[in-house]
Amino acid sequence: MDIVIAKQRSLAVRRRLKVENLDGLIVTGTENVRYLTGFRGHDSWALVLPRSVVLVTDSRYTEQALGECVGCKVIERKDTLAKQVARLLEAQKGITTIGVEDTCPVATFAAIRKALTVKVKPATNIVESLRQIKTDAEIRLIKKASKVAFDAMEWALSHLKPGITERELAALYEFRLSAYGATRGFETIACFGPNGSRNHHQPGSRKLRKNDMILLDFGANYEGYISDTTRCFAFGKPSDHFCHVYQTVACAQKAAIAAVGAGVKVCDVDAAARRVIEQAGLPVYGHGTGHGLGLQVHEIPYMSASDKKTTLQPGQVITIEPGIYLPGRFGVRLEDDVLVTEKGGKVLTGDKRFDVEPNTVPVR
Amino acid sequence: MDIVIAKQRSLAVRRRLKVENLDGLIVTGTENVRYLTGFRGHDSWALVLPRSVVLVTDSRYTEQALGECVGCKVIERKDTLAKQVARLLEAQKGITTIGVEDTCPVATFAAIRKALTVKVKPATNIVESLRQIKTDAEIRLIKKASKVAFDAMEWALSHLKPGITERELAALYEFRLSAYGATRGFETIACFGPNGSRNHHQPGSRKLRKNDMILLDFGANYEGYISDTTRCFAFGKPSDHFCHVYQTVACAQKAAIAAVGAGVKVCDVDAAARRVIEQAGLPVYGHGTGHGLGLQVHEIPYMSASDKKTTLQPGQVITIEPGIYLPGRFGVRLEDDVLVTEKGGKVLTGDKRFDVEPNTVPVR
Repeated sequence: MDIVIAKQRSLAVRRRLKVENLDGLIVTGTENVRYLTGFRGHDSWALVLPRSVVLVTDSRYTEQALGECVGCKVIERKDTLAKQVARLLEAQKGITTIGVEDTCPVATFAAIRKALTVKVKPATNIVESLRQIKTDAEIRLIKKASKVAFDAMEWALSHLKPGITERELAALYEFRLSAYGATRGFETIACFGPNGSRNHHQPGSRKLRKNDMILLDFGANYEGYISDTTRCFAFGKPSDHFCHVYQTVACAQKAAIAAVGAGVKVCDVDAAARRVIEQAGLPVYGHGTGHGLGLQVHEIPYMSASDKKTTLQPGQVITIEPGIYLPGRFGVRLEDDVLVTEKGGKVLTGDKRFDVEPNTVPVR
Repeated sequence: MDIVIAKQRSLAVRRRLKVENLDGLIVTGTENVRYLTGFRGHDSWALVLPRSVVLVTDSRYTEQALGECVGCKVIERKDTLAKQVARLLEAQKGITTIGVEDTCPVATFAAIRKALTVKVKPATNIVESLRQIKTDAEIRLIKKASKVAFDAMEWALSHLKPGITERELAALYEFRLSAYGATRGFETIACFGPNGSRNHHQPGSRKLRKNDMILLDFGANYEGYISDTTRCFAFGKPSDHFCHVYQTVACAQKAAIAAVGAGVKVCDVDAAARRVIEQAGLPVYGHGTGHGLGLQVHEIPYMSASDKKTTLQPGQVITIEPGIYLPGRFGVRLEDDVLVTEKGGKVLTGDKRFDVEPNTVPVR
């Protein structure tokens, strides 16, 4: 991480802290810590103070932290995280109220409250709201993650033959990512045949049969940034029913992507996709239409029907992923990563689906 | 999961709830939900009520939950988890105080408190304290996880040659697990040469060189149960210094395993290992000496120097993992999975290290 970026980010956090009447922030979320300090390890907190940022880590990570952290002091704790932070705060003047990220466990918050003499308050989405607006460098990393994900999946799919299991296909994909210096972005979902209707199916021992429908939800983590895409196709001859469902999902996705743009309500993006499926008389999916992504696979904003307030902002990267699920038969979901710009949505996904007619049912 | 096991577990939870004056428990932890209901998905809660257990999930998982859950009702939520739970509780009589796992995020706890009309209290380690005592079936799964981890690593190591990167070796290992129906238990740690002193190093592009020391911390997840072991060896000729350090760690580990037994304080197990390294005049590790494992890679109990109260109980499975880290040179950690019995510690690890002389420095 660049020192200028690090300084900008801590400055932006302090600006938000001021609005919320907080004199500092205890950053407990792994990705938030990374975003502010550059540290890529775990079990460590960043402490944003009026004039400095401190990473509190333990002996397992000290050497790594000293190599990775930018624009912050590294402290190796000799006690619990909460007690070490308490000691650091005692040396500070003028701090009366400190925020703690409300994503931390209740037990952790209680331990912090017990250890500290200053007032402690839960803080919501302070770092997350900064993280949702991506820099050009971050967008490049997400694009690269998507590119290597498709390259790795293409390689995995060259091994596709009757008898291969879902688990084997997922393992081939995840293995190949290492050739690109990447790892999986999340647990790969590979569904053959009727398993496709189980939205978050864990790949198992189901063997591929001729004419199975296949659903793959896969992503890569490249230098910390994550891609998340879903593709569906037929292994052999697709049934007319599958083609109809596939094309309906493709239209729904196209409608939602067309709706994306700065200032647009997330619920309107959601509605754009849902409407197409409703009008086709097919069962409407129960999950949201998409989510932000970046250092985490699920970030704010969420394309949720019940969120009538949140609007999209330029620089956000979101997924658009409507689906149709037919238990006992198959499922179709199409998911792409989309950058929000002033002019609309820009697809970042690393395959050619949007260069050709995205409604064409793919076959292998 | 067996229905008898499911009933026993929910009964045991209710017994603990009674002691803590709680009329029910909202189980938010993924592994705790699995332990009580058999459900293997995510983002779902179990609600333990006086006469029933309810799984609250969403449409992504309903089909899967209906197939996996045992001895509990499955509800597909139409609203947020907290609001759905509130509705379920409204239909219950005689509930005045309900526990919420204190491992859940502060924001989640606040949402539950807001949605519910009954009193809400954080609850600590209710399910976790049951989970730490493993049944024979659970011990078999951990042993199996360890066995497939070593089989997969043996295969990965057959590809060891100068120039292979840490990331490639880790990827080969994780890939091979799929052949055994397993996945990684956690992010594999593979360190070549001086990277071994970084306890929780993330495998990178460092290439293997002749006479490098190698540290591998790896585990498998087999049917939900996790193994966790660390092995170190020389690729070529080990230096005398490495041999001395290795043998010291092996002696420290042996001493700690010899100390394991029902009724023994965790701090005494920790001290047994630490003492050997201190007496050898080598730098003592900063991390704990071990941790419980099972459905999660880190569970209670922790072999911690500062915990003067906790004693070991028969049926616990713990790691014993002392280390010596020499920044800029190399690191040695040896980690095995050990079952606590009335008669002492029983090593469950799936290789032959404890069948031969464990002090011998391995070479490849």
